[in-house]
Amino acid sequence: MATILDLNADVGEGFGRWELGDDDAVLATVTSANVACGFHAGDPATMTRTVRTAHERGVAVGAHVSYRDLAGFGRRYVDATEDELTGDVVYQIGALQAIARSVGAHVDYVKPHGALYNTIASDERHARAVITALQLVDPALPLVGLAGSPLLETARAAGLTVVAEVFADRAYTPGGTLLSRREPGAVLHDPQEVAERVVRWARTGTITAVDGSEVRVRGESVCVHGDSPGAVEMARAVRSGLEGAGIALRPFRAADPR
Amino acid sequence: MATILDLNADVGEGFGRWELGDDDAVLATVTSANVACGFHAGDPATMTRTVRTAHERGVAVGAHVSYRDLAGFGRRYVDATEDELTGDVVYQIGALQAIARSVGAHVDYVKPHGALYNTIASDERHARAVITALQLVDPALPLVGLAGSPLLETARAAGLTVVAEVFADRAYTPGGTLLSRREPGAVLHDPQEVAERVVRWARTGTITAVDGSEVRVRGESVCVHGDSPGAVEMARAVRSGLEGAGIALRPFRAADPR
Amino acid sequence: MATILDLNADVGEGFGRWELGDDDAVLATVTSANVACGFHAGDPATMTRTVRTAHERGVAVGAHVSYRDLAGFGRRYVDATEDELTGDVVYQIGALQAIARSVGAHVDYVKPHGALYNTIASDERHARAVITALQLVDPALPLVGLAGSPLLETARAAGLTVVAEVFADRAYTPGGTLLSRREPGAVLHDPQEVAERVVRWARTGTITAVDGSEVRVRGESVCVHGDSPGAVEMARAVRSGLEGAGIALRPFRAADPR
Amino acid sequence: MATILDLNADVGEGFGRWELGDDDAVLATVTSANVACGFHAGDPATMTRTVRTAHERGVAVGAHVSYRDLAGFGRRYVDATEDELTGDVVYQIGALQAIARSVGAHVDYVKPHGALYNTIASDERHARAVITALQLVDPALPLVGLAGSPLLETARAAGLTVVAEVFADRAYTPGGTLLSRREPGAVLHDPQEVAERVVRWARTGTITAVDGSEVRVRGESVCVHGDSPGAVEMARAVRSGLEGAGIALRPFRAADPR
Repeated sequence: MATILDLNADVGEGFGRWELGDDDAVLATVTSANVACGFHAGDPATMTRTVRTAHERGVAVGAHVSYRDLAGFGRRYVDATEDELTGDVVYQIGALQAIARSVGAHVDYVKPHGALYNTIASDERHARAVITALQLVDPALPLVGLAGSPLLETARAAGLTVVAEVFADRAYTPGGTLLSRREPGAVLHDPQEVAERVVRWARTGTITAVDGSEVRVRGESVCVHGDSPGAVEMARAVRSGLEGAGIALRPFRAADPR
Repeated sequence: MATILDLNADVGEGFGRWELGDDDAVLATVTSANVACGFHAGDPATMTRTVRTAHERGVAVGAHVSYRDLAGFGRRYVDATEDELTGDVVYQIGALQAIARSVGAHVDYVKPHGALYNTIASDERHARAVITALQLVDPALPLVGLAGSPLLETARAAGLTVVAEVFADRAYTPGGTLLSRREPGAVLHDPQEVAERVVRWARTGTITAVDGSEVRVRGESVCVHGDSPGAVEMARAVRSGLEGAGIALRPFRAADPR
Repeated sequence: MATILDLNADVGEGFGRWELGDDDAVLATVTSANVACGFHAGDPATMTRTVRTAHERGVAVGAHVSYRDLAGFGRRYVDATEDELTGDVVYQIGALQAIARSVGAHVDYVKPHGALYNTIASDERHARAVITALQLVDPALPLVGLAGSPLLETARAAGLTVVAEVFADRAYTPGGTLLSRREPGAVLHDPQEVAERVVRWARTGTITAVDGSEVRVRGESVCVHGDSPGAVEMARAVRSGLEGAGIALRPFRAADPR
Repeated sequence: MATILDLNADVGEGFGRWELGDDDAVLATVTSANVACGFHAGDPATMTRTVRTAHERGVAVGAHVSYRDLAGFGRRYVDATEDELTGDVVYQIGALQAIARSVGAHVDYVKPHGALYNTIASDERHARAVITALQLVDPALPLVGLAGSPLLETARAAGLTVVAEVFADRAYTPGGTLLSRREPGAVLHDPQEVAERVVRWARTGTITAVDGSEVRVRGESVCVHGDSPGAVEMARAVRSGLEGAGIALRPFRAADPR
């Protein structure tokens, strides 16, 4: 049974005039904040405000790196070459590192966003490009990836610190991976049900898959969302469920201060 | 009389498929390279190649930060707020720092590009935004600015290290500032004439202004260009002129290793 | 006294994942919709949805052209050359024309956005660039501009059809121009007060300036906003005020079907 | 045996400060010019200059539409939704139509660029998105596509006019499709060899495939390149070879004036 968990969510996903989600509410709920770095969202002024608030609240700061795709919010696969992708990831991490430094904070980890996250879970070429980027910028930067995905092994074998994450509001296959969003029931909407699932997983290490079977999923961080009023409510339910179950919520970096 | 000078030029000003200038020739000639950081030119893969080559040749690496203006190559004034501009500059410096780290190099200085360079030479608001950016990222990063401009005093008063630069191929007013490009004769084209001007300035500290008067200009770096065959030829003429006159060419950072 | 007026507002100002304002509510209230064309907001899919809805509701469609400035939402002056700006405006109008055609609609007028709107009200160079763009694309396209601004005369002299607009929620100087947003009281917030001002202007042709004097302002269109709940409420108050006063609300194009 | 053929090439592939290829030489050689529309290259000022020159020389103007990918020059697949892609194509065509109108020209056809070209040759979803775009903007606009590709049949079945093109400098498989660039020998470099291949194809309708077999390929247009000195030389060799063989070179639109 887990006694300590990290709770992460995406923040800073506005761009210039545009805002997205209720970052204040999210940053009051999670322990790690995935901060957009300019390629799918996040102009520098937004990044600065976001990191400052996260830092003030003791929330860890992650570089939420993405394919270069503002128009598609990083949700579209882009067939970049390895060199392009490595450069893009290095660039985004460095940009956020300087923004963080400008407010007295620092980047604690890297979590790829959207299509890049999904792609590297199983695509070796782009996984390698991202892993190379972390090795070049700072091999001690933990990489957050999908629990159960091949990425985690590859990154670990490459010497990176890896953090496996589970998704609070997603259905799982009997194989322990996410049910595709294209399938009915892939996304769960009831805050209480979601909170109970997460608590049960924290206690037992297993999640009830779509076919009713129990599947073991190892993870150290739970991903919640904050881009709608319902999402914030769900994040809060997950947090209070875990706390009620005696799980301490802390950034995973706490285990290995950097 | 100067015995040591820095020679700087803009490099890495391609973007994706597009190239600009002969960076190899330039990097074989100068001692400091102003590397585009993505806002007027310079995708991450180009930045990486450029910094790697500069580093291999012992050329110092500068962050050539710009207004966000790919379509205008950073040559157009953009009326950004101070916060926006500070964030943009922090972002670009950090991005280049990570790129540099990825090839074992580091960023030695900051030199604003194009319209931003010209604007902050005299505009207090945007000068302050840039100065703030350097203070927040790393107050030890030298700022390269126009010799004789108010910027240098302001930046020095703010505690920054300032490097004054003169332009090899530009005409000067009797007041010691650049003659506007809109005036006839503002840009000099003959490599030998330019080389001789620079050598004479290095020896005497004075430049012959457009009205024939001698004007004193203090500077530690000489800016040359490399975006045309003629420009490369001129850069080489300046270098060999200075070397022939016994001036040692070294990155200005050499005086103050960081 | 006016018997017919146009009511216009900005719509389609999202971009990709980002939305802004309540376009449905706005399009149910106004008679002309200024549709973002991609340079400050408005990706093609958003443009398509916006024009389709406007067209279905019988709302006229305007090209809300802007400086190229997604990060600044077109609110920042960009020192483009005349050729660049003319090209940018032609490009945006054409793009919206094709989008409009794709849903069976067409572009009825052009209204510059944000910094471009404010700049060309008095700046001759950029005004000329915009006027040239309309002449080249379609000299019959009406240009909406600030009532009382020099632009209107210049555009009229160049053979364009000009539509003068007043701002429902802005304070006016005794000279009949807008009070700068930097001045206190420049923006009015009370829907009833604003509606009454507009109705009185529609009846008498005069607006009470900040110094209490009455100033005559000629205009054919009233600009309202829709980017906040309060803004939508105000737009509705203006509409029902005008209708209650017996003013017919119709797109200005109605007078001159194109 | 063909008696009339079209010769097309990509032009206007600079962006702002960046130039690419020798458009003047290309426009003196080809009969149809594929003009970049801003998504992979081609700012509005460049588009304007390019279309003006093409028009002055009697060269037909095509909309060279692309995925939104300036950093990758449109050479990277982007997993856009159908609606996004349709909107993007409509937008680009319209933008070029207005630019063309501004110089007294018009858009004669549409030819997708780079990764979009390759993708729709066989991918139904993106093919459908492009076909829909043409149907919505102007169903009479011819679509240029890869000779022998499924796209041509799909587009024809959808009521579009289709133009099949062959590539002068590419090796073909025995199946009549292009040999992948990843295979050795996929791109031919000798101008005389290329010119002779094209002439033989024009006379006989067959091309010698990589295995030595003769494969029949139907096409009305020949694609040449102009982005290097060697490419221009090759384009000229193809032109003079065809003319020497008595083939008339004319834009394909000539057969069906629109």
